[in-house]
Amino acid sequence: MTRDVLETMRERRSIRRYKDQPVPDDIVRQLIEAATLAPNAGNLQPWHFFVVKDKKVRWDLAKAAGRQNFVAEAPVVIVVCADPAHSASRYRSRGAELYCLQDTAAAAQNLFLAATAFGLGTCWVGAFDEKLVSMALNLKENLRPVAIFPVGYPAENPRPSARRPVEQVLTIIDTPAQ
Amino acid sequence: MTRDVLETMRERRSIRRYKDQPVPDDIVRQLIEAATLAPNAGNLQPWHFFVVKDKKVRWDLAKAAGRQNFVAEAPVVIVVCADPAHSASRYRSRGAELYCLQDTAAAAQNLFLAATAFGLGTCWVGAFDEKLVSMALNLKENLRPVAIFPVGYPAENPRPSARRPVEQVLTIIDTPAQ
Repeated sequence: MTRDVLETMRERRSIRRYKDQPVPDDIVRQLIEAATLAPNAGNLQPWHFFVVKDKKVRWDLAKAAGRQNFVAEAPVVIVVCADPAHSASRYRSRGAELYCLQDTAAAAQNLFLAATAFGLGTCWVGAFDEKLVSMALNLKENLRPVAIFPVGYPAENPRPSARRPVEQVLTIIDTPAQ
Repeated sequence: MTRDVLETMRERRSIRRYKDQPVPDDIVRQLIEAATLAPNAGNLQPWHFFVVKDKKVRWDLAKAAGRQNFVAEAPVVIVVCADPAHSASRYRSRGAELYCLQDTAAAAQNLFLAATAFGLGTCWVGAFDEKLVSMALNLKENLRPVAIFPVGYPAENPRPSARRPVEQVLTIIDTPAQ
């Protein structure tokens, strides 16, 4: 298991099967701490994290995610929430519709990489009914759930998903030759 | 200089002053490769990256960012773009308004961490006029600029920005004691 940052990015996988083995609380806390280190607009930190261990609530989340049962089968489920109004208080609509989503996505990516570095498996789940997740977590009105991460020790070893060649997604604007 | 993933997250800073020293092309390419390793909805990879070395275009970007001159003062400026229509083709409005922003933010965070690991300094610039950036880069209609990263060797060493205590941003939902 590597903790080299670039290797960790390469080894990151979407894991949907988990061992029947609990995740230590102090490691879960380190995942949250990693998330909070993310860059964010104006250091507003427009986020809140829910760590769900309760089985019934995990199943409520799985149902909210269109019955993706693997969400409930993980011993811990982390829900990343954004606080659009907090971002809007300084940055108006750009804060609510862009920055708070970017800030929480950067936090989520930190969380994903940290989990990988700890030998954990997780998956970034974005397909869910936000109202059902809000009900499952009894969210305050200001919080918007933006990503769900079921977390456990991996019981599968999928191959990496393919990427388009860099040339297809990169444009270089260099100074014209004299 | 560490490349440990958690240490890199802790050492990441917003750097706005750069040495007069070029960034090697192969390192810039590794930043882009790191970005493309980000998780993304349905592996659609709804992104495009512009590496700007041309001085005039760098100044156009700085002006588009409300005259944040440090953007132009970096030897290389990377602009991350999203392709909302590509995400919408499979996921409709949730793809255009959420997933493609999250996917590109995760890519941006990979880029930021990779830059840190290479000893480079950069800053996530989100405040800019999207139309002016689109004009500066002659963007196709399908691309939306979502983040600008001026990249260079750091000429400052700022302290980390403070974070709220984890307890303020974390809620644990555990099984009630029997």
